[in-house]
Amino acid sequence: MRDDSTEATSTERILDAAYARMLEHGLRRLTVDDVARQAGLSRITVYRRFSRKNDLIQGVILRELARFLSAFEQAVGPLPTMADRVTEGFVVTLRLVRGHPLLSRLLATEPELILPHLTLEAGAYLAVAREYLAAHLDTPDAEAVAEMFIRIALSFVLTPDSAIPLDSDDETRAYARRHLVPLLPSEGIN
Amino acid sequence: MRDDSTEATSTERILDAAYARMLEHGLRRLTVDDVARQAGLSRITVYRRFSRKNDLIQGVILRELARFLSAFEQAVGPLPTMADRVTEGFVVTLRLVRGHPLLSRLLATEPELILPHLTLEAGAYLAVAREYLAAHLDTPDAEAVAEMFIRIALSFVLTPDSAIPLDSDDETRAYARRHLVPLLPSEGIN
Repeated sequence: MRDDSTEATSTERILDAAYARMLEHGLRRLTVDDVARQAGLSRITVYRRFSRKNDLIQGVILRELARFLSAFEQAVGPLPTMADRVTEGFVVTLRLVRGHPLLSRLLATEPELILPHLTLEAGAYLAVAREYLAAHLDTPDAEAVAEMFIRIALSFVLTPDSAIPLDSDDETRAYARRHLVPLLPSEGIN
Repeated sequence: MRDDSTEATSTERILDAAYARMLEHGLRRLTVDDVARQAGLSRITVYRRFSRKNDLIQGVILRELARFLSAFEQAVGPLPTMADRVTEGFVVTLRLVRGHPLLSRLLATEPELILPHLTLEAGAYLAVAREYLAAHLDTPDAEAVAEMFIRIALSFVLTPDSAIPLDSDDETRAYARRHLVPLLPSEGIN
């Protein structure tokens, strides 16, 4: 019989170790063996859960995404209207993403290695975010609307250069009110 | 005195040669010397215009972008309303981008090399497309609106996985009518 709580703890330890090594050494030099050593776990324990380096990277990204969605929920959940949640959701998204140590590090030092995960191979992450956001959008076509919000936010992460001033929270808020809130089908703005 | 027409012709020949080599051999093995040889021009002639490999890649991308905008203009220019132009513009964009031989080739075989150009370093291309599109949008805040359209289209190029069915022109059209046309400030839909 497997002990599920130990299982979960090991997975967390592995992802903690993978995150730390990615932050310090980047993706190119990441190895499953080094992660096992840093986690203080046997190679076999790590390989059973993450058999390839790419699985480790995906595991770290999925956990960071879950953490982001949790912070997002905390920030916008209490707001009274859908328009407020969209506006502040965009503000908090840019703030969290820009302040994310690992994402910033990898985009700056190994763009060629992290970009495929955030574009061509991002379908799985997009689906997680879309499912979360769609469940919170009280609109028709919630999936399509959710996906559009996520694609726009991701675009500003991938290509920060913009004619739209988004340096301060106030600028970001003004942009979101004017250009993102209207993405909600009108039935959904309440 | 420089002969500007010869100058322009040489640049075209260089970009033709660079395009052909990129299509056949990809980006990793591209060299300015090989492009000079293929163009039948001296190395010095090529280096005077494109001193680094990256300049050649940017030159090819900018010319493809100009060609795309010209095809886009032909397709949507004659349409009667802004809503029609946005709808058909999205349809023609996906069609042209998906059918683009070089873009498809590079995304499939050397994503790590082409993705930085299409994301972190795409600011200059985004600006060209934004300026073109904003000039054609008869709306307030035309630059911001144009940029959003471009970011959404680019996102579908970079991350095709979607919950939104966009396989046929009819599906793409339905999506654009429902979700992109409303991005036009209401003053602009006519």
